[in-house]
Amino acid sequence: MTTGLLTIFCRHTSCSLLIQENAAPAARRDLEAYFARIAPEDSSSYTHNDEGPDDMPAHIRSALTNVQLSIPVIDGKLALGTWQGIYLFEHRRLPHRRTLALHIQGE
Amino acid sequence: MTTGLLTIFCRHTSCSLLIQENAAPAARRDLEAYFARIAPEDSSSYTHNDEGPDDMPAHIRSALTNVQLSIPVIDGKLALGTWQGIYLFEHRRLPHRRTLALHIQGE
Amino acid sequence: MTTGLLTIFCRHTSCSLLIQENAAPAARRDLEAYFARIAPEDSSSYTHNDEGPDDMPAHIRSALTNVQLSIPVIDGKLALGTWQGIYLFEHRRLPHRRTLALHIQGE
Repeated sequence: MTTGLLTIFCRHTSCSLLIQENAAPAARRDLEAYFARIAPEDSSSYTHNDEGPDDMPAHIRSALTNVQLSIPVIDGKLALGTWQGIYLFEHRRLPHRRTLALHIQGE
Repeated sequence: MTTGLLTIFCRHTSCSLLIQENAAPAARRDLEAYFARIAPEDSSSYTHNDEGPDDMPAHIRSALTNVQLSIPVIDGKLALGTWQGIYLFEHRRLPHRRTLALHIQGE
Repeated sequence: MTTGLLTIFCRHTSCSLLIQENAAPAARRDLEAYFARIAPEDSSSYTHNDEGPDDMPAHIRSALTNVQLSIPVIDGKLALGTWQGIYLFEHRRLPHRRTLALHIQGE
């Protein structure tokens, strides 16, 4: 395929798809620290905690970001910018198995 | 249609499309409370209030979330995860009639 | 083309694509002020500042918004609502040349 559109869809409500800086690890750490500050594990703020104190903050961080990305394909390659990387942003504390649905269209 | 892509587009700037937890009503209430805290109806923070104190917070909450979602169709069904539901997230206080534009592609 | 889907993809990690109110300039100023408050240029909060104090806040503001929009085309026109405008939201202080990748599908 040389020209088309790739759609990535994350089938969860407690992780996100994110396009971010692909070079500096410090940028990823700062980003994680930021979301921990802006949507903290503060049990007094939430009533929903079926799965623990990181349950509701995970839903909120998911709402503040995205679960879907569509990226054009040009000349057979994703049209990402030089510094763009695609990340799955995990919002739960424990490791989880995550599944994505992909759709590609083009010729 | 068995395989394709559904795009949902919200034609407004004061509500959002959101994929969130579809089971626990408490999660939705916590989410609404969170956005009320993070983008409050605080008239001293905004100059734009043509439609009242909930006008600018509604635009901000829309910017922090999404007005568009594209979801793959696999085996004739939306490829949503078990816990994912699609919501229209209303950011204004009074009821509003909202319109969506849909695009579906596939075969 | 009368019916289809336009996808706009921003090839950067320090600016965003945003659909917002297209009439009142005050709404845009309030939105910019809001993001400056919620993701401030506070050097004590970030370790990543390779490109200066506005580097990491720009990545965060990008993560909180979007780099991609897909908009249905109906009757030959983008199905935007009356008050919706498409904006490139620049998060860096100095002017930058920005490139978008577009994909259009339809007939």
